Amino acid sequence: MNALSAEELEARLRDIGARRYHRLHPFHKLLHGGACSKGQVQAWALNRYYYQAMIPIKDASLIARCDDPATRREWRSRLVDHDGTREGEGGIARWLKLTDGLDLDRDYVVSLRGLLPGTRFAVDAYVHFVREKALLEAIASSLTELFSPAIIGERMEGMLKNYDFVTAETFAYFSQRPPQAERDSRFALDYVKQHARTPEAQQSVLAALEFKCDVLWAMLDALYHAYVAPKEVPPGAFVPKD
Amino acid sequence: MNALSAEELEARLRDIGARRYHRLHPFHKLLHGGACSKGQVQAWALNRYYYQAMIPIKDASLIARCDDPATRREWRSRLVDHDGTREGEGGIARWLKLTDGLDLDRDYVVSLRGLLPGTRFAVDAYVHFVREKALLEAIASSLTELFSPAIIGERMEGMLKNYDFVTAETFAYFSQRPPQAERDSRFALDYVKQHARTPEAQQSVLAALEFKCDVLWAMLDALYHAYVAPKEVPPGAFVPKD
Repeated sequence: MNALSAEELEARLRDIGARRYHRLHPFHKLLHGGACSKGQVQAWALNRYYYQAMIPIKDASLIARCDDPATRREWRSRLVDHDGTREGEGGIARWLKLTDGLDLDRDYVVSLRGLLPGTRFAVDAYVHFVREKALLEAIASSLTELFSPAIIGERMEGMLKNYDFVTAETFAYFSQRPPQAERDSRFALDYVKQHARTPEAQQSVLAALEFKCDVLWAMLDALYHAYVAPKEVPPGAFVPKD
Repeated sequence: MNALSAEELEARLRDIGARRYHRLHPFHKLLHGGACSKGQVQAWALNRYYYQAMIPIKDASLIARCDDPATRREWRSRLVDHDGTREGEGGIARWLKLTDGLDLDRDYVVSLRGLLPGTRFAVDAYVHFVREKALLEAIASSLTELFSPAIIGERMEGMLKNYDFVTAETFAYFSQRPPQAERDSRFALDYVKQHARTPEAQQSVLAALEFKCDVLWAMLDALYHAYVAPKEVPPGAFVPKD
């Protein structure tokens, strides 16, 4: 097996996104197309909160494995984006504005009591992956951000149009994310193209992105099973009122 | 065993510093008193570089274990202090100005090839402690910073007076540290006083600070053995020219 050129590697990574990113999941089609009940949108936001809350922990875990101050500095901006610089700022706080806007009790959301086990296991698998795999694979697993600006555009447009319980203010999280995701994914893509030179390293990078797509996909599988069909909510998880 | 009051706990922590902080180590007395050769000062700076280089990795490891965004934000300032906001800034870069000023080759310092095994094991033990113990213990282990402003004052005065190969510019690292150490140790001390309420938790906090004092002490034991008496440099470690 020969090594791919940097351009071929990028094309292979983008192809994974085209085939496996959660934008293609049936739950996202329902969500963006206006076919979800308010309870289903609540369940999505509540479960996604755990992903948001664990992202800085994932990113700090990556920084903690990184010998190079320049890479640590670059990755540190992700901590700033998610945790903010003071109380009430940053991505996690903005996500809680979304769950507030959906009339979910904030203490209940933050307590994680209503979380689907499938969400928890998928998110925790991501954190463990970043802690345990090679640094190159940890960085590559962030590359789903290459595909997120498009999905965020679709989501904002579709959800604002289709749900009267969603407002632009509630959606402040999404208006901030695309430029951050573009900056971060550009850095990670350049890093991967520069550091994955052997066939083995390139395969590990492709597998890392597939893994991450699996994480996001599994989160939506769990939501679909519990709240769309067969609507089997696991014991203890959030039960919508409608 | 009854729980200590917050004030009693603080007094016990300060007592550990008074008895076990590395300011009391024979090597520090030689270093600050002007009794070291240039080669011994080089060996100290070279070995201490590894500690400096691992501090952001230790701090990111702590952030990675921390569920609370406010504590993560507070601890993030330590990453900023050590890694800086751009190339050439921050505590690690300033430490390399010190090793430059001591005429050590920068590539050699950064390569860690000349490091004493005793330094490596002590520093790595600190990182592992922070990764593996309870968050409260990880935070408590940073409390040697309560005692560092005093030692830094002594060090700057003593070394600038006693060594003609040390300049104030070379010592830029130390002029920056005291206000950072005061801010950080105040936060950590408040955290520990607030969170260590049971006798068991308080004992774990006291043990964590003793552990950290042991780390710093063991680093100087290794230096003393290799470069003062019996001057037995382990195979592969830095050999001074004078």
